[in-house]
Amino acid sequence: MQKNKVISQQVIKRLPRYFSHLGYLLESGVVRVSSMELANQMNLTASQIRQDLNHFGCFGQQGYGYNVQVLRDEISKILGLGCSYNMIIIGAGNLGQALANYNNFKNMGFSIRAIFDVNPQICGKKINNCLVSHIDELESSTSDFDIDIAVLALNSKDCQEIADRLAALSTKAIWNFASFDLRVPQNIAVEDVHLSDSLMMLSYAITNNANNA
Amino acid sequence: MQKNKVISQQVIKRLPRYFSHLGYLLESGVVRVSSMELANQMNLTASQIRQDLNHFGCFGQQGYGYNVQVLRDEISKILGLGCSYNMIIIGAGNLGQALANYNNFKNMGFSIRAIFDVNPQICGKKINNCLVSHIDELESSTSDFDIDIAVLALNSKDCQEIADRLAALSTKAIWNFASFDLRVPQNIAVEDVHLSDSLMMLSYAITNNANNA
Repeated sequence: MQKNKVISQQVIKRLPRYFSHLGYLLESGVVRVSSMELANQMNLTASQIRQDLNHFGCFGQQGYGYNVQVLRDEISKILGLGCSYNMIIIGAGNLGQALANYNNFKNMGFSIRAIFDVNPQICGKKINNCLVSHIDELESSTSDFDIDIAVLALNSKDCQEIADRLAALSTKAIWNFASFDLRVPQNIAVEDVHLSDSLMMLSYAITNNANNA
Repeated sequence: MQKNKVISQQVIKRLPRYFSHLGYLLESGVVRVSSMELANQMNLTASQIRQDLNHFGCFGQQGYGYNVQVLRDEISKILGLGCSYNMIIIGAGNLGQALANYNNFKNMGFSIRAIFDVNPQICGKKINNCLVSHIDELESSTSDFDIDIAVLALNSKDCQEIADRLAALSTKAIWNFASFDLRVPQNIAVEDVHLSDSLMMLSYAITNNANNA
């Protein structure tokens, strides 16, 4: 992979889709696949797929297509999978607990090292073998490891303050489930998952489909 | 609001952000706000905000700005909030349970009417006062109401088959947490929340920030 080449977010956003889809093909025993077949299966165009993948190297072979296992392994490397990442979860409510219990993330290399909350009824308990500490202990409980990914699974006005504390701890990335847009230094990657927003897009679509019917 | 005017998805996607932000302003006792102030708070430009809102009507007043309560109420109507929606959840694992337990959705008008799973250890139980039925009962258990939103909170190859059954039931919208891209008739709105994809975007960012450092 060429370093420092600027690749559009649109292309990067499709990589996990390729990765997942190739996984299903592998499970189904598919050994090779053409860009045309992939395009049909994934609702893309063959030329888009070829262009996307050419950003990262030459993985296909004219007349043969792509070797599913090889291509998936390459995309896995590009996505930084196969490494292990230290993850912490802030907020042990319904969503935080669900994420903590979701073992598939661990299988992908994301290990939950600590969970934080403010609720005294939850602090001190274990979720999926991980102790829930009070948020006041954020700095002390994470002093012996680097925080790769902090999951913000709470909805409170304190989110920005917590994000500032995470930035001070040199956190590399924030997975933000809070319905706030965080302000963080540019070197911290942020992925927003605004669930309520997503739901409102559906109520908008339902209402407007009905109005236009 | 003008009917049948095509408004870009980018504009529509910002509406929930406005709605949430205006909610925080209201909670903080803010009565009016200028497009410039909103822009600074939301990391947008004042002209973008004015353009966005002008798609739906004239809500601001030169020299006064926007009345926070009035603007929020108008955006609420545009988003179809204030109506009630029948929601069903398919998949009562960690995520499905978290969504079922999240009472804020109910407060927004989204009522969970039924939950489905295949696991015999979960079927028959209640989550947040809602019975979990076997997915075989999807059609019979929903015969007395319209399905506005079906939440796919499972990851299985059966997703497409379930989506086909939901389409046959005239489901209006699907909130898709499965890591599959569904094929559904055009009149069914789909919002994808691909959590693993989102996490892979972070591992990509961490890996590439490190490579480029």
